[in-house]
Amino acid sequence: MKSPFEADLMQLAENRLAIEGVTPMIDGGRFAVKRVENEDLTISADVFSDGHDKIAAAVVYGGAGASNWTETPLTFLVNDRWEAVIRFEQPGPYRYSIIAWRDLYATWRDEAKKKLDAGKLTDLELTEARELVKAAQNSGRGSKADQKALVTLHERLEKAAGHGDSTAQYSLMMNAETIALLERAGNRTNLSRFPGDIPVWVDRTVAAFSAWYELFPRSQSGDPGRHGTFADVEKRLPDIQEMGFDVLYFPPIHPIGKTNRKGKNNTLTPDEGDPGSPYAIGSPEGGHNALHPELGSFEDLARLIAKAKEHGLEIAIDYAIQCSPDHPWIKEHPEWFDWRPDGTIKFAENPPKKYEDIVNVHFYRGALPTLWYELRDSFLFWLEKGVRIFRVDNPHTKAFPFWEWVIAEIRKVDPGVIFLAEAFTRPKVMKRLAKVGYNQSYSYFTWRNKKWELQEYLTELTTEECAEYMRPNFFVNTPDINPIYLQTSGRPGFRTRLALAASLGGNYGVYSGFELCEFLPVPGKEEYLNSEKYEIRAFDWKAEGNIRDDIAFFNRLRNNEPAMQDFRSLAFFNFWNDQVLYYGKRTADRSSYLLIMVNLDPHHPQGGHFEVPLWEFGMGDDGLIQAENLASGQVVAWHGKVQHWWLDPSECPYAVFKLSSA
Amino acid sequence: MKSPFEADLMQLAENRLAIEGVTPMIDGGRFAVKRVENEDLTISADVFSDGHDKIAAAVVYGGAGASNWTETPLTFLVNDRWEAVIRFEQPGPYRYSIIAWRDLYATWRDEAKKKLDAGKLTDLELTEARELVKAAQNSGRGSKADQKALVTLHERLEKAAGHGDSTAQYSLMMNAETIALLERAGNRTNLSRFPGDIPVWVDRTVAAFSAWYELFPRSQSGDPGRHGTFADVEKRLPDIQEMGFDVLYFPPIHPIGKTNRKGKNNTLTPDEGDPGSPYAIGSPEGGHNALHPELGSFEDLARLIAKAKEHGLEIAIDYAIQCSPDHPWIKEHPEWFDWRPDGTIKFAENPPKKYEDIVNVHFYRGALPTLWYELRDSFLFWLEKGVRIFRVDNPHTKAFPFWEWVIAEIRKVDPGVIFLAEAFTRPKVMKRLAKVGYNQSYSYFTWRNKKWELQEYLTELTTEECAEYMRPNFFVNTPDINPIYLQTSGRPGFRTRLALAASLGGNYGVYSGFELCEFLPVPGKEEYLNSEKYEIRAFDWKAEGNIRDDIAFFNRLRNNEPAMQDFRSLAFFNFWNDQVLYYGKRTADRSSYLLIMVNLDPHHPQGGHFEVPLWEFGMGDDGLIQAENLASGQVVAWHGKVQHWWLDPSECPYAVFKLSSA
Repeated sequence: MKSPFEADLMQLAENRLAIEGVTPMIDGGRFAVKRVENEDLTISADVFSDGHDKIAAAVVYGGAGASNWTETPLTFLVNDRWEAVIRFEQPGPYRYSIIAWRDLYATWRDEAKKKLDAGKLTDLELTEARELVKAAQNSGRGSKADQKALVTLHERLEKAAGHGDSTAQYSLMMNAETIALLERAGNRTNLSRFPGDIPVWVDRTVAAFSAWYELFPRSQSGDPGRHGTFADVEKRLPDIQEMGFDVLYFPPIHPIGKTNRKGKNNTLTPDEGDPGSPYAIGSPEGGHNALHPELGSFEDLARLIAKAKEHGLEIAIDYAIQCSPDHPWIKEHPEWFDWRPDGTIKFAENPPKKYEDIVNVHFYRGALPTLWYELRDSFLFWLEKGVRIFRVDNPHTKAFPFWEWVIAEIRKVDPGVIFLAEAFTRPKVMKRLAKVGYNQSYSYFTWRNKKWELQEYLTELTTEECAEYMRPNFFVNTPDINPIYLQTSGRPGFRTRLALAASLGGNYGVYSGFELCEFLPVPGKEEYLNSEKYEIRAFDWKAEGNIRDDIAFFNRLRNNEPAMQDFRSLAFFNFWNDQVLYYGKRTADRSSYLLIMVNLDPHHPQGGHFEVPLWEFGMGDDGLIQAENLASGQVVAWHGKVQHWWLDPSECPYAVFKLSSA
Repeated sequence: MKSPFEADLMQLAENRLAIEGVTPMIDGGRFAVKRVENEDLTISADVFSDGHDKIAAAVVYGGAGASNWTETPLTFLVNDRWEAVIRFEQPGPYRYSIIAWRDLYATWRDEAKKKLDAGKLTDLELTEARELVKAAQNSGRGSKADQKALVTLHERLEKAAGHGDSTAQYSLMMNAETIALLERAGNRTNLSRFPGDIPVWVDRTVAAFSAWYELFPRSQSGDPGRHGTFADVEKRLPDIQEMGFDVLYFPPIHPIGKTNRKGKNNTLTPDEGDPGSPYAIGSPEGGHNALHPELGSFEDLARLIAKAKEHGLEIAIDYAIQCSPDHPWIKEHPEWFDWRPDGTIKFAENPPKKYEDIVNVHFYRGALPTLWYELRDSFLFWLEKGVRIFRVDNPHTKAFPFWEWVIAEIRKVDPGVIFLAEAFTRPKVMKRLAKVGYNQSYSYFTWRNKKWELQEYLTELTTEECAEYMRPNFFVNTPDINPIYLQTSGRPGFRTRLALAASLGGNYGVYSGFELCEFLPVPGKEEYLNSEKYEIRAFDWKAEGNIRDDIAFFNRLRNNEPAMQDFRSLAFFNFWNDQVLYYGKRTADRSSYLLIMVNLDPHHPQGGHFEVPLWEFGMGDDGLIQAENLASGQVVAWHGKVQHWWLDPSECPYAVFKLSSA
């Protein structure tokens, strides 16, 4: 940026109007604001000039590479603040900026009306009007027809002036047609522009609205003694579709190393048949661009991807940039690794966790840029295989600039590719990953159980600046996280956490077993006993006590109700019981309006008085509104703002009311 | 800015560490942060890297034109936030930025200590230490002595290794000398830099701390029948010094036009002898670079400036960019004015006020750039005459870019020049003027009388972003503003408003007559009857009932107490009476600690319980503290947090307690 101490007269003079406080803008335009296709983007700015003249302003926008700009007028709000709403239709890179100018026509109209009202409108003002219209003929703006219309307008004004007809001149200047003509074709005096274009990235809808289901393909054979295959996963598709998920996600599907292979329950002493952790990527059979042979072939994978699509499911794979000690890269590219003086490579740690079966690459020195190219090409390899969603393992232990570069590179090939950051780390690090390009982010939701902490966290995520670029994905559990709450809650707690994740999250996810209320932990730890990370398991997917109906209910609700499709359509309302979280999800036009209550206490019925937000329907405190509990079908009529409800976790820990004011 | 969609690998890779949320920074560095000589500038940033390595960071800073940078380490606070405090000694332009790097030495120490504590420190770690020290010899950092010390250190480590002496090697690496040596001369791995230098403007102290006294020189003869002169003003200097002011400010001192001259009380029908408004600048005798002949010569002015300095006073003049219809510019530079079709120029308005005796220049078209140059040269003319403080009339009706340019131009000649913006307009416009360079700003203080509105306004001014660049000047009255409060308050109200302005404002001002409790208004208006703007007046400057002692008390207090010299050293505390404003002004070390109470009700005694901020002295609620009321000399001992006080406006509407915890 130019130093303000070397102000150049002519350069400064070009921008007479002040355009400040432009939002949304991330770190001064260093990073892109994010939206999905056809999502509203509300742009605001402080716009003002010196003096008392009327001004006008507009947002200009277009594709990042394109040379043409679209224009939408900004509307004055209050206190020099202006606003406009725009949309982008297709995924890809865009940018916007703000322009503003002194509107001499509006100034003239304002003053002329005051003079007229005071009986003081004279020929002088009308002569000035004719001069303004004459000058517009040199504006270089408007269509040919507009320029012709300006000539005609001027002639008509002159003619009326010739007759001394003030009224005719005034009417000509004030009519809607003239106003619109001058807006299109008139001069923009002191046209000023915000310095810099603000980048916007537009994603496919699934980046902001998706329901994920995670499973280990090797556990899908139904027999813990037999390694599952892609074909076995195919058989599960109807099942998963029935629950209503959008994305089917697999932990790494690459060959698994043998050196330091982990045994069952993360031991360092595997049995002969133990399959090892799929995160220990790479063996003589290949590395990041290979398939674990026991899962099947690339043809099998292609068929699975196609079949999944038929079942409304998109496949996501795990991308973990790390290697088993047997990974081919270690011999082919020793310069990508940190060798210690004794000729070893340090194994990976994500304190307090230790990964003796994994070593990390580094991203600088000998790895820059050859490793970066290799990884880019690897992402492109899988993209070619039909995978457009990558869940990236521990991205916070890899260099931010690498992500910024590689995501931009992949998007040049396909702007619809989605990256989910599996970073459970410090808040600013998680936000940085979203800034550098990640479309979705794992979140702290998995550990937010109390009313106050859910309200605080969701308020941050949906209303603070991060809402412009970070889209959390609320996983209820993962192979790494068996939440303490679920270890002790019983089935009601699973329904509660599902209700929260599915209704609060634009994106949410379930790791298989959750629907069966699986909860057995490694004692004292937040981990699953007999974790699928270290052994092949088999489950009865429709076992008694499952919560498949709840999952299907919420996924239907999400798809049927537009209010559920905007993460930021959230408002918390008063329910006078600290065990009941109560919130609204609603569209701007209130046509889809849901009130959701969730009992956070899995052990006891909880109830209390709550506020029906009648004010959002323009009603007084004694208004009458109908509500249908979509979870039960029960219809109630609430007369008055304060009502009472009761949630018994042994029956149903949640209620979802759809309001209709008719 | 470069589009984030065209991420360049090598360019991105250079900045591995994230440096975000840098404060203070105004509009992304578009405008300068302001400080005065030797004032603390606290710089904060979010700084972090990928992974788990230790990092270090520093602020780098220097003169805007200079090529050398000074460096001060940033200290880690919490949640990836870092902070440092720096100062600049001389007025002028500066800039700062942030650098950060991965600190491999600190990482080594951290890991080595953990290993040692766990009994697992091996030769491997010690070999790595020797390699790190060896590598530092190529860092290109540190003095020659440092580089020599690195060689010696390495030799000693190798020697100890040769003896198999782990303890010696560990001690060598851990001792304070080695740590300091490696900080000075070690490698800065992945050295990253915030993109862009952030501008800082440093002013003379008087920009942030000044007490102004305004008078009309022509009213200083003591005889309303005789036009006062600069020599008459000289005679008043001891008087003004006695009250303790720093700045003596005159409304325009240029020749006054005759066309449409205003008569007494702003009438359009002047008497023969009426002097006219000094804001109607310009006559055949000259314009903006001339003196009104009846005031005296340039020699007289030079003598007055010199004499004022002897009395501790600096002269400020009014600079009003506007013309009487008789101003020479109108004939010499018709292109600087907006001519209407009938050959007239519209007279000035600042709604609802009308100035029939004044026309405005414009700043674009024919006036760009010749008028800009003329005005710059005019400021330089007065600077040459010894004037370094300009109070600028209605700057918000002149183009912002002009101010930005002209202030930068003047500062190139003398960085100590001060501009005060007399803009009573919308908040964002006032802030913009401060951003483009004004050192001081008129404020809404003059109309803030109630406790809640004073607290709200002062909290905004002292704690929000504007505190980094806007310095309000709290005028209690002006020739244009005879506040309603003072019209009805009697003498106690004048003392109250003085106490507020002088103790809350870093800068504050008094228009002469205030000390005499002058209040007669044009009935129903916020204006003075028989205003000096339109006639010559005479006053008995020591008339009965004056509040000169109060003024002198507060100006002494301001000069004696460092707490009073920092506008932002303010904290409001609880006084359970809405008529009593109660606040602290204090230095960081608490050595200057004042508690101030002001009764806002000029008609009734007000009292109540209040909180002594014992917690700021590390005391419990039952602490004991001594306080001296500097206004009365009374000494009290407060035992316990809640105390009671009483302010009788007929005696003294304020109390100023100096605390001492000893």
